[in-house]
Amino acid sequence: MNTYLIWLEWPERCFRANEGDLKLFRSLVPKGSRVMRVKSERAFLKALPSATHAVVWHFKKEWFACAPKLKVLATPAAGRELVAWRDAPRGVKVHFGSFHGPIISETVLGFLLAWARGFFWKGPMWPRAELAEHCGDLEGTTAVIAGFGRIGRSIAARLEPFGVECFGITRHGIFTLADYASAGTVGQTKKSKNQTIKKSRLYSRADWFILALPSDTNTDDFLDARLIRRLPKKCVVVNVGRGNAVDEDALLAAIKEGRLAGAYLDVFKHEPTALNPRIGPRGKGLAAARSVPWNLVRMPHACAFSSRYMKECFKEMKSEGLLD
Amino acid sequence: MNTYLIWLEWPERCFRANEGDLKLFRSLVPKGSRVMRVKSERAFLKALPSATHAVVWHFKKEWFACAPKLKVLATPAAGRELVAWRDAPRGVKVHFGSFHGPIISETVLGFLLAWARGFFWKGPMWPRAELAEHCGDLEGTTAVIAGFGRIGRSIAARLEPFGVECFGITRHGIFTLADYASAGTVGQTKKSKNQTIKKSRLYSRADWFILALPSDTNTDDFLDARLIRRLPKKCVVVNVGRGNAVDEDALLAAIKEGRLAGAYLDVFKHEPTALNPRIGPRGKGLAAARSVPWNLVRMPHACAFSSRYMKECFKEMKSEGLLD
Repeated sequence: MNTYLIWLEWPERCFRANEGDLKLFRSLVPKGSRVMRVKSERAFLKALPSATHAVVWHFKKEWFACAPKLKVLATPAAGRELVAWRDAPRGVKVHFGSFHGPIISETVLGFLLAWARGFFWKGPMWPRAELAEHCGDLEGTTAVIAGFGRIGRSIAARLEPFGVECFGITRHGIFTLADYASAGTVGQTKKSKNQTIKKSRLYSRADWFILALPSDTNTDDFLDARLIRRLPKKCVVVNVGRGNAVDEDALLAAIKEGRLAGAYLDVFKHEPTALNPRIGPRGKGLAAARSVPWNLVRMPHACAFSSRYMKECFKEMKSEGLLD
Repeated sequence: MNTYLIWLEWPERCFRANEGDLKLFRSLVPKGSRVMRVKSERAFLKALPSATHAVVWHFKKEWFACAPKLKVLATPAAGRELVAWRDAPRGVKVHFGSFHGPIISETVLGFLLAWARGFFWKGPMWPRAELAEHCGDLEGTTAVIAGFGRIGRSIAARLEPFGVECFGITRHGIFTLADYASAGTVGQTKKSKNQTIKKSRLYSRADWFILALPSDTNTDDFLDARLIRRLPKKCVVVNVGRGNAVDEDALLAAIKEGRLAGAYLDVFKHEPTALNPRIGPRGKGLAAARSVPWNLVRMPHACAFSSRYMKECFKEMKSEGLLD
């Protein structure tokens, strides 16, 4: 009989398991299993010796010694910073969430649609002619998505039905969703079919330049002053990956000088998150700037703030066989 | 041989026919036809005697006397205020646009997604807990759509794939899109299948209360203090129909007192549009208010500001056989 130990506390409500989430979790595990939910580190460590499965935000390496029955250690996080996965003994499967794409892609779609219809524009309501200059449509536009993993491809899948032509760029070339569909598996697509498209030509027609890059694959300042100069004035930059990938000074200068139409940054170089306790309560750089131009839209690493976050997480664990 | 006379000037760019729109138009009419585009009333009246088709924003009743060859008089507008359709002689078919639904439904979807992810929330970025309280998801929510004509049904069709359960309310009862699909034609749905659902119960579970009502069917103050009291505190009101349908004072009071979560008004009781030249350059009431709570989002009758507006308009004319 399995014992599932859930410790999912976090300051933001959507990142805690509520009663509805727990009800779903109980329906996903074998009948007769024990599901324990704890709310503190102390209660977690007390229950850990009997747990076969642990679902957590944090796990320290020394805790493995107190978990003789542990078979599965799962976290909703995609990032590997908070769980000591390198120290897991043989026989413990460590799982990081990869369910975030559909949630984040709705955020990106919402931003793009709202941007196209002028919701972010600041100015007088009447007369309307100035606002109308800022309005457009998704249909017929081109999105370049830097980072074409699960999240990048989820974004493309959400945008294409709205008439946005999407190209993913990776270290291996330029890809479309159709390349992945025809290749069958991700690995087979490493040879891009779109090498006839020049990156520079693609950049020059980008209406949306969307970053969905991880932080640990040599992506520091990926979007720098040089790359920004290759993007057209109409282009709107979106970063829902990691903050390290954008040269914030170069981006701000380009927006102020009208060399880019705008940007939506969800992530920043210096965020005051749990991952960066020394940064201070408001972060540094653009994360902390008191005022920015209206066409630089900032959100505090919130693109996955969704009431279905935990449910999607649990459903993924089930579909990957981790709850058996 | 037909002569198509296009006079589509308007202060906002998206409501004027650009070169791309005209190219599309020419591709839709029979080969050998004449397509004339004019930019002033004077040029329009000069060309009118030879026109078989006129595409306009305005048409005065006395102009019919100067249009002996006219067979089709078409306008992009859904509203009937600017074209003297009642005075059209026999033999002149007058067409009002009804292509707006897909455009407006993208605006509504964009607002709902952006609202759910907290883009409209005003407050400090860090810490994030307060913002997180305002964030949610579309999946699992309920939308009540007052007015279930083409625009209302387009909105439902856009929202349902995102997990929003949609109910349309009309003078005849409560309907879903499925009712229309099964009935085959609109007329047959007049008898609602959902009469077992009580309106009051439906109102009490509305996450989104969306108005898509015309102004000329006894809709003044449809959303008044009494109806607002039947909506739950979590509810967000959206009006993309006409401004007459909302009691602005009652709505503002409910938002200020926390009896509604928020609202997005695209239309107002007293807009300074071309239809209301006497209202003044900023309108009156909520259209003119200098500041409103952050959770009352106002846009200046802009929900159809789309770069595909004219193309959708021309494609509809073609599909309805008006360009033959």
